[in-house]
Amino acid sequence: MPETTPSNDTTSAAARPLGTLAGLRFTKGHGTRNDFVLIFDEHGDVDVTAEMARELCDRRGGIGGDGLIRAVRAGNLDAGADFAPDTWFMDYWNADGSTSEMCGNGARVFAAYVEREADEDLRSGLTIGTRGGPRTLTGLDNGHYAVGMGTWALGEAPEGFDAEVTVQGLAHPHPALSVDVGNPHHVVALPSLEALEALDLSNAPVVEPVPPHGSNVEFVVTRGGSLVDGVPRGRVRMRVHERGSGETQSCGTGACAVALAVREWAGEAAPTVWDVEVPGGLVTVRIVGDQTVLEGPAALIADGVISG
Amino acid sequence: MPETTPSNDTTSAAARPLGTLAGLRFTKGHGTRNDFVLIFDEHGDVDVTAEMARELCDRRGGIGGDGLIRAVRAGNLDAGADFAPDTWFMDYWNADGSTSEMCGNGARVFAAYVEREADEDLRSGLTIGTRGGPRTLTGLDNGHYAVGMGTWALGEAPEGFDAEVTVQGLAHPHPALSVDVGNPHHVVALPSLEALEALDLSNAPVVEPVPPHGSNVEFVVTRGGSLVDGVPRGRVRMRVHERGSGETQSCGTGACAVALAVREWAGEAAPTVWDVEVPGGLVTVRIVGDQTVLEGPAALIADGVISG
Repeated sequence: MPETTPSNDTTSAAARPLGTLAGLRFTKGHGTRNDFVLIFDEHGDVDVTAEMARELCDRRGGIGGDGLIRAVRAGNLDAGADFAPDTWFMDYWNADGSTSEMCGNGARVFAAYVEREADEDLRSGLTIGTRGGPRTLTGLDNGHYAVGMGTWALGEAPEGFDAEVTVQGLAHPHPALSVDVGNPHHVVALPSLEALEALDLSNAPVVEPVPPHGSNVEFVVTRGGSLVDGVPRGRVRMRVHERGSGETQSCGTGACAVALAVREWAGEAAPTVWDVEVPGGLVTVRIVGDQTVLEGPAALIADGVISG
Repeated sequence: MPETTPSNDTTSAAARPLGTLAGLRFTKGHGTRNDFVLIFDEHGDVDVTAEMARELCDRRGGIGGDGLIRAVRAGNLDAGADFAPDTWFMDYWNADGSTSEMCGNGARVFAAYVEREADEDLRSGLTIGTRGGPRTLTGLDNGHYAVGMGTWALGEAPEGFDAEVTVQGLAHPHPALSVDVGNPHHVVALPSLEALEALDLSNAPVVEPVPPHGSNVEFVVTRGGSLVDGVPRGRVRMRVHERGSGETQSCGTGACAVALAVREWAGEAAPTVWDVEVPGGLVTVRIVGDQTVLEGPAALIADGVISG
């Protein structure tokens, strides 16, 4: 859609496309196809603004990404005031210029980034600052990263469900369980991969009763389980409609919500480790008491500099 | 949509995300938001493959772009056999791994790229090779670039129309004129910007009679005209549905087709220079006898290297 009226002004955006950003160094990375522009700014020299986040995340006029992540020591920004000054802080900006508390897939990419750029040893865990509080990042033997995702709570649902979801592609409303993992989710179980693929998530599913602040909605199909190193391990496939973003290729908190809901439905003997197939790849969720841990890959794709 | 079944294989795509491309240097650029990954490969050292084009143009797992453009001397690839060996050749690959003859917006970005990388002087015109034949690129005083787009032909249409187009958002079929500018187009005139904005181009418009190889379809609204340096100059706004790509932000041949159709409808006294507002910006089309020339901006956004 044409959103603006182009003018005849030719005083050349061409010559300095991203204007004041010329010379800025960046890295492009993704975690299960949730992708980011990363800036390493240990001393807080870069004045990140909403406009800068929008320009860099623009997929055609900029570099492109779901978000902008700056690695900065906590002492160098106001949002880091609750942390020791030398704590690494994940300064997360959405593509629309707003900030977010946390992003599970982004935190894995952040882990790979500070490991490489700052030579941090993540094998025994590194606690970072985020706007959502401290999080622990751990490098795993298989090259993946684990992110502590904080505490969770299920809805009051003695029968396993406390809501109903209506969505295009399903003939009638389906029961859902509400899950809070720092942000709100509703999880719906489907009987088959065919039913999962038949969903049309181009419009937001409708949740009843209506959540006061909206909700992310996950649809999940169980795919059996196995023993890995003697530990029972479940496997599911999911699709997700993210509040404000539409259908996405991967949602870290959504994967955690799905694991928690499926374990709740399966009862006490169910696994606490779940492999979760998302459209963008595979992540693993470990339920550890009142916390979840999200494991998965992180890829640093390219390093570059904005043209002058 | 989940298209593949992720496996449990964790032998780390994370460590070498774009595998064999590690170390490859690239530039990201765009022309009126038609965007490209560019590779400077004067001596033909890079073995470009369909898979490489797909990986680099992947907007989440790669760099992201509508296409991959390699700048190479014609003597270093088979497709350049018709040109003197030291002619610069625009080796154009679509994001899906296929090749294309030409791309008007891409040619402007190519012009900016060889000007910067090879220090070519474009002020008096540089003739390059493409799979569609030779094209002349010229650097303009305002920092924009002009691209010779080759010859054109209108459909046999004594009354100005030789087809009908049906599209979502218009109540009934509208008359259209077929225009060939190396590829097939149909142009439909609309009465107002409101009508243009009300179109739903998420599905392909239907053209009758059915074009044998499909067609790109443009919708255009006239916006008056002016005298610029004593030369009459028309102005239009358009939207386009590109065959095989859906609605796009800019289409160079589409802008040429629109200028040709609007001039045909306006009669002999109509301007031969047209400013064409596309969703991604503004381009200018000059009709010069049996040829068209496309002028517009080109931006080189960033330079980078694929991670190892």
